[in-house]
Amino acid sequence: MQLGMIGLGKMGANMTRRLLLGDHQIFVFDLDQTAVEAAANAGATALESVEDIPTLLSAPRAVWIMVPAGNPTEETVQKLVEILEPGDFLIDGGNSNFKDSMRRAALAGKRGVRFVDVGVSGGVWGLENGYSMMIGGDEQAISELTPIFQTLAPDSDQGWARVGKNGAGHYAKMVHNGIEYGLMQAYAEGFEILQGSQFDLDLKQLCDIWNHGSVVRSWLLELAGNAFSADPDLKDLEGFVSDSGEGRWTLEESVALDVPAPVLYAALMTRFRSRQESSFQAKVLAALRNQFGGHAVKKAGS
Amino acid sequence: MQLGMIGLGKMGANMTRRLLLGDHQIFVFDLDQTAVEAAANAGATALESVEDIPTLLSAPRAVWIMVPAGNPTEETVQKLVEILEPGDFLIDGGNSNFKDSMRRAALAGKRGVRFVDVGVSGGVWGLENGYSMMIGGDEQAISELTPIFQTLAPDSDQGWARVGKNGAGHYAKMVHNGIEYGLMQAYAEGFEILQGSQFDLDLKQLCDIWNHGSVVRSWLLELAGNAFSADPDLKDLEGFVSDSGEGRWTLEESVALDVPAPVLYAALMTRFRSRQESSFQAKVLAALRNQFGGHAVKKAGS
Repeated sequence: MQLGMIGLGKMGANMTRRLLLGDHQIFVFDLDQTAVEAAANAGATALESVEDIPTLLSAPRAVWIMVPAGNPTEETVQKLVEILEPGDFLIDGGNSNFKDSMRRAALAGKRGVRFVDVGVSGGVWGLENGYSMMIGGDEQAISELTPIFQTLAPDSDQGWARVGKNGAGHYAKMVHNGIEYGLMQAYAEGFEILQGSQFDLDLKQLCDIWNHGSVVRSWLLELAGNAFSADPDLKDLEGFVSDSGEGRWTLEESVALDVPAPVLYAALMTRFRSRQESSFQAKVLAALRNQFGGHAVKKAGS
Repeated sequence: MQLGMIGLGKMGANMTRRLLLGDHQIFVFDLDQTAVEAAANAGATALESVEDIPTLLSAPRAVWIMVPAGNPTEETVQKLVEILEPGDFLIDGGNSNFKDSMRRAALAGKRGVRFVDVGVSGGVWGLENGYSMMIGGDEQAISELTPIFQTLAPDSDQGWARVGKNGAGHYAKMVHNGIEYGLMQAYAEGFEILQGSQFDLDLKQLCDIWNHGSVVRSWLLELAGNAFSADPDLKDLEGFVSDSGEGRWTLEESVALDVPAPVLYAALMTRFRSRQESSFQAKVLAALRNQFGGHAVKKAGS
């Protein structure tokens, strides 16, 4: 079917390619002309402006937004809600906060535009393996978009489903990413212990053993094996870890629901710490130990 | 090849069956006669006493211990070290502490008995899928036991390897289980948030979506899907979680090595909390809030 794809970053570009391989007609837009040309070379139709969507696509039009969460998504949604016509579909496949998606669905709904929020997982491997999709919105709307989901998913009937009303898709993706932080940190702590042990352990070898028959086997552990294979001591990396919001929102939700989440919490805190060279709280501890016990301190710059 | 299997619990019994299917000759011993008879019916040779091992098995004899860690393993090792002869193999496949395994290897070595420590993962699914094995000990000894490992593993050349000298096998398994606690707790927290959300989410459905193409796909998530499929709200379960030692030892090791392990730590703590009906520390908090702020308390039995 026809689909407009707004945003050709790592995710949007690969999803466009997968959709083109599935014989869909994709109209693409991005502020970066290089990305637009790459998609056009792969078979997509370049849009000079999102204003061309009503004339170039047949009704009901389906437009998929794959731009960064926050302001870029907000501005794109606002603009498209004005441009699109009643009965058209507006799909947000980014990592938006579920509360924003609920608000945007209501906003779009006032103009008769059918909003669908899709939590998409799969990373850069999705082009080849397919994407896992948690979808929130009206049943009829999602049903009409089935050909798109079937092509993006790993298999036509697997890895995607409507999980609830608007907001549910991004909510499920939010918690999915919160879990992801916890899983990653559990592996990370284990590998640091193994690496520091008295046994000269080969972390890549352990990944290979564990990925065959062990309880901890997973896709993340396969990726860890790839990383250790390329650089056994990870000496080419800084231990600096960003976060893109969903982990924070998961914790906000755990607080809102009074659900204890110590592991997800600790996983996010270790990311914060990873970005500090010398933390102020560590200085406070050093200062207090010095004050009450005369314990030695390390002077800055020493 | 010939192998003596001491201990026919869930793990030992299934490993015996897998070895029998691989055409090995297995001599079995257990204090529970029912377990011995079941193994004998599957084709194993029942031992009336471990003292029969030197006469019934050909040298060099290989004996695999699969009994609970701690005293049962200690007593079995002590006895077998006396009974076995120089050149024989003594394999501990249980969840022993790596420090005990290093000591036992030295003890066995004094009599010329070749000790091998094997960390085994795979649980009750190992019979069908094969077991993941981290093996510590002398290279030559492990090499001579290859036919056993090849049969127990998922594939003859996958899921098993020598990871280092004696102790390394159980060390790797210890950290493996520590990681397992963290992974399980990350999923558990996520599912409790999802279950408490304003969206009427279907946890089994989310497991199915995530297991196809998502970053958090894993064997544990497949098992979670099985559990939610059988009992969507887990209403037939108590939230009571035991631990069998490796998580504690992993944290002891993180302390010994000065490696921060907040997620593995929190995962073990939540297991401790799961076994308390009303915790003393929660009472202390309630009492203090009452003392300094006059906040209401819930009286016991109210």
